[in-house]
Amino acid sequence: MFETQTLASYVVTGRIESVPEDVRHEARRAIVNYVGCALGGSVDTAVDRAIQALGPYSGKPTASILGRTERMDPLHASLMNGIGSHVYDFDDTTPKNYIHPTSPVASALFAYASANPVSGRDFMEAFILGFEAESRIGNAVYPAHYDVGWHITGTAGVFGAAAAIGKLLNLESREMIWAIGLAATQAAGLREMFGSMAKAFHPGRAAQNGYAAALLAQAGFTAGEHGLEGPRGFAAVQAAKYDLLKITTRLGEDFGLRANTYKPFPCGIVNHPTIDGCIQIHDQHRLAPDQIAAVRLRVAPLVMDLCNQQGITKGLQGKFSVYHGAAIGLVRGKAGIQEYTDAAVNDPQIKRVRELVSAVGDPSITEDQARIEVELTTGAKLTRFVEQSLGNIHRPMTDKQLEAKFRDQAVAALPAEQVEKAIGLSWKIDELDDVAELIRAAVPAGK
Amino acid sequence: MFETQTLASYVVTGRIESVPEDVRHEARRAIVNYVGCALGGSVDTAVDRAIQALGPYSGKPTASILGRTERMDPLHASLMNGIGSHVYDFDDTTPKNYIHPTSPVASALFAYASANPVSGRDFMEAFILGFEAESRIGNAVYPAHYDVGWHITGTAGVFGAAAAIGKLLNLESREMIWAIGLAATQAAGLREMFGSMAKAFHPGRAAQNGYAAALLAQAGFTAGEHGLEGPRGFAAVQAAKYDLLKITTRLGEDFGLRANTYKPFPCGIVNHPTIDGCIQIHDQHRLAPDQIAAVRLRVAPLVMDLCNQQGITKGLQGKFSVYHGAAIGLVRGKAGIQEYTDAAVNDPQIKRVRELVSAVGDPSITEDQARIEVELTTGAKLTRFVEQSLGNIHRPMTDKQLEAKFRDQAVAALPAEQVEKAIGLSWKIDELDDVAELIRAAVPAGK
Repeated sequence: MFETQTLASYVVTGRIESVPEDVRHEARRAIVNYVGCALGGSVDTAVDRAIQALGPYSGKPTASILGRTERMDPLHASLMNGIGSHVYDFDDTTPKNYIHPTSPVASALFAYASANPVSGRDFMEAFILGFEAESRIGNAVYPAHYDVGWHITGTAGVFGAAAAIGKLLNLESREMIWAIGLAATQAAGLREMFGSMAKAFHPGRAAQNGYAAALLAQAGFTAGEHGLEGPRGFAAVQAAKYDLLKITTRLGEDFGLRANTYKPFPCGIVNHPTIDGCIQIHDQHRLAPDQIAAVRLRVAPLVMDLCNQQGITKGLQGKFSVYHGAAIGLVRGKAGIQEYTDAAVNDPQIKRVRELVSAVGDPSITEDQARIEVELTTGAKLTRFVEQSLGNIHRPMTDKQLEAKFRDQAVAALPAEQVEKAIGLSWKIDELDDVAELIRAAVPAGK
Repeated sequence: MFETQTLASYVVTGRIESVPEDVRHEARRAIVNYVGCALGGSVDTAVDRAIQALGPYSGKPTASILGRTERMDPLHASLMNGIGSHVYDFDDTTPKNYIHPTSPVASALFAYASANPVSGRDFMEAFILGFEAESRIGNAVYPAHYDVGWHITGTAGVFGAAAAIGKLLNLESREMIWAIGLAATQAAGLREMFGSMAKAFHPGRAAQNGYAAALLAQAGFTAGEHGLEGPRGFAAVQAAKYDLLKITTRLGEDFGLRANTYKPFPCGIVNHPTIDGCIQIHDQHRLAPDQIAAVRLRVAPLVMDLCNQQGITKGLQGKFSVYHGAAIGLVRGKAGIQEYTDAAVNDPQIKRVRELVSAVGDPSITEDQARIEVELTTGAKLTRFVEQSLGNIHRPMTDKQLEAKFRDQAVAALPAEQVEKAIGLSWKIDELDDVAELIRAAVPAGK
């Protein structure tokens, strides 16, 4: 009935001290994962082009962009942080609603915090509440909303950014209701854009528009007060079926962060169980590539639909090749950014093993599973069954693995010692007097 | 099949020299009406608050905002022009798709032209092509898209702004396809916001986001190439039913501008036939208010649903009172901005006549019609039947009436001699060497 008002009140009154420690730790993990992704993607052409296009329109450059030397106003910095952190599709995912949740919220918060003093406590409070608003709104409209073609990371993300920035601005309840309304009326992003730079534009624009929604609300720019539940509001217009109870039920008790997951490998998630199993075989047996005679995979049928690319020559193609995934796992024992370059795809040893891989779709194998058989030149066979893929909700990446992922990405943007500093500060973000300390570590020295 | 590509090619190759003169004149009328509305609304609190909220984030103030002394970057100026021109709901309407079409397109173009030299010819070419893109996309998804709750002025408007600015940027076909894609993925605006400032935010944001889409496309920021017709594109996601043929059929032969209309009175359109008829009685008989003994209206039943407010004291209430509409028509012979102030609503003569008005809903009366009977104190009766309301597509406002409407609004923002200059320059906009000449006339001297 009054979901917008209930949610607004929760965000206005919520305090981090009421958030259980496991949720707070998951928030730290989300931030560690996010900062690494933002640094990794910050060097991408999509960010270059967006800065080239919009840089001339930026306001006073009071805000840093993670991983970049350029500075912009905080709204534009939100956009650039969002593009960079999502452009490699390596950021977090909440499987129950398909949202990549941290990018829209944290992209706005880091932009805000680089232009305004914000304590780690306040930052994390705003992050957890923004994440919660976004998750709950996403849950309410998923799956109909996603299925019809909305990129829910953009559409739910704008609410998360509005709530988080609104929290830091100390909006009152009515202003927060307007901020949610102004977010609702900007909720956009089509799945038709997948495969282009515009996909990463979605969380960026969500961050920027949510931030602007909070600023406008603060200035008394009014909006409809039933942005979520009204007869012409977000849920009714943008989802054929929805359940508004998911916005308000057990508010302050259940937390969306508990359903969050982190990708271990920068490629299509359906390849993950295969890569995971091959890395396990690598780590256990330390095979030399020329010991391998054949690799046989049994995988979920969807893998064969999405990732059945053989004869590849480009890094990007590697992301959609389960054969490449198996090969890099077995040869290198890892599948990081460096395993998806053109050079890696054309590496003779990887190529040789890749061409030994065959795969069969098997309806008895779930998308979290893979059955791997490696036949050696001796005729011996090594087998591995992955029952739960690393990174899924039942087998989360460890903190150490998140750190390794951060490092693997961040070296593209920062010198090694700054990478280590940024990792350390990200883990203890909620203890910082000013989040600017972390941001300084996550920005390269000017030219 | 390839509507995005076909439309992009048309916008890229279209030339004003191929546009028939009647369409060009309608474009001039649309601009005259727009500039007047933008000036009238520029003094509204919604614009004040938006500038207050976002001014600190503006880039270099290279662009004027119509009617305001403040300057901002062209993207923000687009937003402010859009808010100002729509905030009084007095801008143009295309009845066949419910779009208020000029605001999103012209708001971006005037911002662009105040920061860059643009000839009147190029401005009008871009305006006509942008208007056409917006109209056709709107036609393709109307009515399902509007009925479910989209504010089509925002959602179709962003395409119009992207096409118009893309035209001035000389985008190539592929870039124009990306611009349309980036517009599609930002198409937003909910009817739930009606009654709040956020309604006027929609054409403003559409202007700003369409402008940004064109800039991004120019820099090579890619988007999906089937933004309109793709299986997860604008039409499929945002309309339960749509007809893509309306985008491409008779492109370059039929023009949306021919279906455009202008509101003569700044109030709910269902009151227009009553006001119109009462003004006719006023003009013919020059009654003194105290000659009137009773006024009896037969109106469309919808009028009684929407505009049945008696006993009013506020200007805003007057807009939703058919009784007030009849009274100002009979007493003042006009219904401009000054007839919807608190002072006018409380004017003793208007109040006295208003209280003599009765109205009956009659299903035989269309929404374009009204039957009016004025009984004089002598017992004589004057009657008038309005068959087509002034301003509708069958009885368009004359150029002179559009000028009077401009004047009535613009005096709120500009000194009288500047108003006359702005009217003159608006009529001959396509002959100007640089549209900046008109913009200078439409901006008050700085404090």
